[in-house]
Amino acid sequence: MKKKISIAVDAMGGENAPEKNIDGLSIFLNKNKSNDDFVIKLYGNKDILTREISKRKIPDNKIEIIHTEGTISEKETPLTAIKNSKNTSMWNAIKAQIDGNADISLSAGNTGVLLVISRMILKTMKEVSKPALAGLWPSKKGMSVVLDLGANIECDEKNLVDFSEMGSALYKSIFPEKKPHVSLLNIGSEEIKGTEVLKKAYLKLKNLSNDNNFIFDGYIEGNKLMDGKTNVIVTDGFSGNIALKTAEGTAKFIIDGLKESLTENFISKLSIIFSYFSLKKFKSKLDPRKYNGAIFLGLNGPVVKSHGGTDAVGFYHSIDLCYKIMKGNLMHEIRNNLSHLNDKE
Amino acid sequence: MKKKISIAVDAMGGENAPEKNIDGLSIFLNKNKSNDDFVIKLYGNKDILTREISKRKIPDNKIEIIHTEGTISEKETPLTAIKNSKNTSMWNAIKAQIDGNADISLSAGNTGVLLVISRMILKTMKEVSKPALAGLWPSKKGMSVVLDLGANIECDEKNLVDFSEMGSALYKSIFPEKKPHVSLLNIGSEEIKGTEVLKKAYLKLKNLSNDNNFIFDGYIEGNKLMDGKTNVIVTDGFSGNIALKTAEGTAKFIIDGLKESLTENFISKLSIIFSYFSLKKFKSKLDPRKYNGAIFLGLNGPVVKSHGGTDAVGFYHSIDLCYKIMKGNLMHEIRNNLSHLNDKE
Repeated sequence: MKKKISIAVDAMGGENAPEKNIDGLSIFLNKNKSNDDFVIKLYGNKDILTREISKRKIPDNKIEIIHTEGTISEKETPLTAIKNSKNTSMWNAIKAQIDGNADISLSAGNTGVLLVISRMILKTMKEVSKPALAGLWPSKKGMSVVLDLGANIECDEKNLVDFSEMGSALYKSIFPEKKPHVSLLNIGSEEIKGTEVLKKAYLKLKNLSNDNNFIFDGYIEGNKLMDGKTNVIVTDGFSGNIALKTAEGTAKFIIDGLKESLTENFISKLSIIFSYFSLKKFKSKLDPRKYNGAIFLGLNGPVVKSHGGTDAVGFYHSIDLCYKIMKGNLMHEIRNNLSHLNDKE
Repeated sequence: MKKKISIAVDAMGGENAPEKNIDGLSIFLNKNKSNDDFVIKLYGNKDILTREISKRKIPDNKIEIIHTEGTISEKETPLTAIKNSKNTSMWNAIKAQIDGNADISLSAGNTGVLLVISRMILKTMKEVSKPALAGLWPSKKGMSVVLDLGANIECDEKNLVDFSEMGSALYKSIFPEKKPHVSLLNIGSEEIKGTEVLKKAYLKLKNLSNDNNFIFDGYIEGNKLMDGKTNVIVTDGFSGNIALKTAEGTAKFIIDGLKESLTENFISKLSIIFSYFSLKKFKSKLDPRKYNGAIFLGLNGPVVKSHGGTDAVGFYHSIDLCYKIMKGNLMHEIRNNLSHLNDKE
């Protein structure tokens, strides 16, 4: 019998936890009634979790509850948290991987603390120069992977090459039928543009493209990010974070403005009746909950960070993401891509 | 009698020049029939320009044509252009400032070449560490100024402080009734976030805030750029360019998707009839032509860069921008802000 995929969930992390987390889990279990290849391990207060689960009449044959005492507050900083986080639900959900009890960990708790204690417990893979935070991004052709989104403010060319290999592995694990296309985020598409680090990374990636882990598409500018011609976008954590948040802000600005326009008078309100289903479909495609879950790559085990403020549907998507990337053999793909890289050097 | 504002226009630069440029000028003159405080100096082929102007029956009492031989092609690189650009329309439109024939220069030609020859001819102000490219950005409360948009890939804290003072001066010259609020673009809003350069700039700006040239609002994240709470956003040219282009790409992605949704079937098409005027108003608010014109700040004279691909309306807006910032005494505001700064150091 094949070993089941074991997902360790910090049931107490994030806003409205654990209710939201359990509601999200309930959606996931409902959608996966016919799948028997996984087990969800919930880390948190056993009494509360047992009560929440029985309230919802969730079948408990695919769940295990592991009791933990504390929870990490949003006010904790990475520095204070190391001292205060031991034996919390987050800590134990990550440590589960070291103890052989889980293949992947998920939390919607404090981001800074999660990054620090994940690094501390799981340690950076020996083949990797720096771990990175990767996210999913909507595009005209589906979804892309973007990394780093903020784990590393400054990066050198070796880091960017590692991110390319890890990002490609992640993309392959989620979309096994597609070929990863890597691009470096820059302020122009010509070879001579950009910082020295980018130029060096460009040359390295051009050579590595022959290894067949990914196709290197060169530089990409911010306005082409969502075209979908390339699906793994690599950048340092500063620029990646600026791009991600600017895109979020722009989308919100436009959609708010549009809503205002469409409800400003009786005639324009009428239009909503006729466009309701089309707009609903479009809104659903852009629903940020579908992209919920940033993946911390480069440690000796994957950690997924859900938005703290997401709702049950968003949390469901992050559990689903854990399930998908484990089915897609993320860690195997990463090791494979990186071994390739080290042969070269 | 007060001296007239003299605007030197490269009439041959950009796509569809000079027709587009002359059409844009025609709109400008029409809207400013009752104003008599400016003169437009057109640099380009005298025969062609005279013909285009007479074709459109433009009154020529506010226009002067200065004949120049060549035009800079889009294929020219900054390196080759220095040799090949002398006596072109772009070169002369900038040189006009040195010769005392103009207060400001405008071109829709090759950006790289424009930045290089502007620097060469006008020279960086002695008080400024690096010149910067500033742009206008839509917000919930109107318009903001963002700089640097790509003139300097790497910046130190002194550069960012200069950008803050120059950006505030620009904002004041365009919106004299409003107070500039400066923010530094960063990946978090807490004081401890970001690069060392940002942290140093933060401290300097906090102190300078007392000088009353601007109010310093601290750090801003990409998702708040368009809230309008702050109106002068300062960043290095790499991050600024990534943010600008990502915002453009996101806006295009959403508006394209929306158009597709609203025209996909008969019922949704009907909705457009009812929302036509509301959507039109909204579209007009976001019209990129209204934001056309990046301002090159920090030289001994201002240079405005219009998008090469814009149309007559876009080019009109960039002429109007030149007129506005000269009416608002841009150079005086910049000198005033910078003198203040140098007293401090």
